[in-house]
Amino acid sequence: MTGPMAPVRDTVDSRVESALQRRLTAHTHTAEAYGTEFARLLRLTSERAVGGKLLRPRLFLDVTDAFGASLADDVREDAIVELATALELLHFGFLLHDDVIDGDTMRRGRPNLIGELHRAPFSEGSRAPRGTSPKQEHWASSSAILAGDLLLTSAVLDLARADIPPRQRHRLLNLMEAVVIETVAGEHTDVGLSDGILAPSLSDVLLMMTRKTAAYSFELPLRAAAVLADAPAEVEALLAVVGRRLGLAYQLQDDLLSTFGDAGRHGKDPHSDLREGKETAIIAYARTTETWPLIEPRFGSPHPEAGDALLIRDLLRECGAEQFARNLMEEQLHEARSALQEGGLASSLPSSVRHCLLRTAASIEGRSS
Amino acid sequence: MTGPMAPVRDTVDSRVESALQRRLTAHTHTAEAYGTEFARLLRLTSERAVGGKLLRPRLFLDVTDAFGASLADDVREDAIVELATALELLHFGFLLHDDVIDGDTMRRGRPNLIGELHRAPFSEGSRAPRGTSPKQEHWASSSAILAGDLLLTSAVLDLARADIPPRQRHRLLNLMEAVVIETVAGEHTDVGLSDGILAPSLSDVLLMMTRKTAAYSFELPLRAAAVLADAPAEVEALLAVVGRRLGLAYQLQDDLLSTFGDAGRHGKDPHSDLREGKETAIIAYARTTETWPLIEPRFGSPHPEAGDALLIRDLLRECGAEQFARNLMEEQLHEARSALQEGGLASSLPSSVRHCLLRTAASIEGRSS
Repeated sequence: MTGPMAPVRDTVDSRVESALQRRLTAHTHTAEAYGTEFARLLRLTSERAVGGKLLRPRLFLDVTDAFGASLADDVREDAIVELATALELLHFGFLLHDDVIDGDTMRRGRPNLIGELHRAPFSEGSRAPRGTSPKQEHWASSSAILAGDLLLTSAVLDLARADIPPRQRHRLLNLMEAVVIETVAGEHTDVGLSDGILAPSLSDVLLMMTRKTAAYSFELPLRAAAVLADAPAEVEALLAVVGRRLGLAYQLQDDLLSTFGDAGRHGKDPHSDLREGKETAIIAYARTTETWPLIEPRFGSPHPEAGDALLIRDLLRECGAEQFARNLMEEQLHEARSALQEGGLASSLPSSVRHCLLRTAASIEGRSS
Repeated sequence: MTGPMAPVRDTVDSRVESALQRRLTAHTHTAEAYGTEFARLLRLTSERAVGGKLLRPRLFLDVTDAFGASLADDVREDAIVELATALELLHFGFLLHDDVIDGDTMRRGRPNLIGELHRAPFSEGSRAPRGTSPKQEHWASSSAILAGDLLLTSAVLDLARADIPPRQRHRLLNLMEAVVIETVAGEHTDVGLSDGILAPSLSDVLLMMTRKTAAYSFELPLRAAAVLADAPAEVEALLAVVGRRLGLAYQLQDDLLSTFGDAGRHGKDPHSDLREGKETAIIAYARTTETWPLIEPRFGSPHPEAGDALLIRDLLRECGAEQFARNLMEEQLHEARSALQEGGLASSLPSSVRHCLLRTAASIEGRSS
């Protein structure tokens, strides 16, 4: 990957991947006792949960490493890898429910779990016809709700069982609770914006992005690393601020890539954001311009005409929305860097952690897939 | 309530209710920072989560009490109440997702969370029209998915944070993991049966019921009480067996009441099981009889004709399905009682626990709402 985080070290990276694989394989084995279809669901879920960019575990491991937590000590390293893996399980659980809510059937350039369950073939002995029917769609999305439930609870259970001192575990569990409610709130706002229940103001869209994605993807890994290092509360608070800025920048970059980037590189359902009427910062800005009446009739249309998506892209460029989002992303990175300046609040931060976070900011800026 | 469990003592009962209320009020307060609509979602969720029969917490408290765990010691009682409350949160989280999957809009005799979100009025400032549109349905079901996510993770977090010895906490967390995967598996099978993906054999339907409901509603509270009492593994294993039998009996009674009982008393959407084509043991038996061709065209019809439900009820009685389910329920209770006979495996069980479980069996048998 050319993504935001350079690996701390390949061995730790591959340990997270193996731990994730092991965790999901154990679930799949358990599932086999409950019938062919359920085992298949867990197998398909596992295949899709593994092979991602491991953004959150990497970030957590990078910062933990920068805090000087001893990865040499075997017991401690096991616990750290387990926590890193829990972050990925949490992420994938949220993704599954996000896909159900958005009705998405593609992810990372291929059918997601729902898409795969739509297209069969089913296990031998099952009665499902091939091809997509309303019942099969219901089966697919219900399956994804249930798989998501399993992953979300597994993530919390793994956090709870990690072999770390009680005080830190308690702090981590409280952090997890705050982050889960914020993520759910952000997703709820996102649904409200897409369904037209909430008015799409630019400030609400930015808050939604911070809550839905930045909180669990950046703030949580950073703060969890601080908790593990037993850092004082003001350090955790500083990392919260930096994490939210970096996370919002990452998400703005993500939306820029989805809307203007090369689908062949980022692997998303091309133009799905535009087709679904996803309320991004790009769109929220465009709504404030005179170009919007040209965009609106084509935006979020379930039956787009050929060329609509390309036309919207051009209009979004013309009206300045692309530049606006790019500037906003730069502003977030600038604010993150300012917070990390030596002196002031950041003086309590080990310089290794500061450098690690500055490298993260740089990689978000240079991201292309 | 005339339900299965007599309260241990009213003060403990009301402590669970207050703890549940407190827990959900805290979530609602947190939610207020995230906007009016999200606060409203949490308020509506809380209103519906409180006021249930507290079947699972009561069962857990009864058996914990029978094991002689000291409820006098303040700290210990707090932890016990917290664990009892977590069982109710888990239950309500599963219910919310179950309602999303089944498309149900009623629960306990009034609109459930989804039904309430369908019918507005929305908060001031929101743009939603009154009445139900596809977008509003999407908003309602998505909201219920997210509220369920919050409750399920909260349940696990509360279990993890309860102030009990580490070894017992670890045992409880492992138990929780096993029960969550089994519940999800049972629900998955239920969806497969309803969607016609899985063939509705009687044995599969019974397994589904045990997994989907008995595991978390009876086996979990019983085993959790054994863990809290630090009971040996064979006692926990015996309670697992008894819990599954009692849970299946409870569910059979539930289906009998839904199908043949008085909707005014049990509060469910009348005939919703028949309209949705829910695969109960009653239906699975009826499929094996010569009467089935008369039932099938009316069963699971989205547009039932007037009188269809009553006709199905009569046919289910005639073909012996009601009696079959009643016998099966009695058989489960008989097996549970046999396992609790003095001598044999049950000799390791304190007699107070045995008596408590026998009382539970009796109350399931006599249940009428």
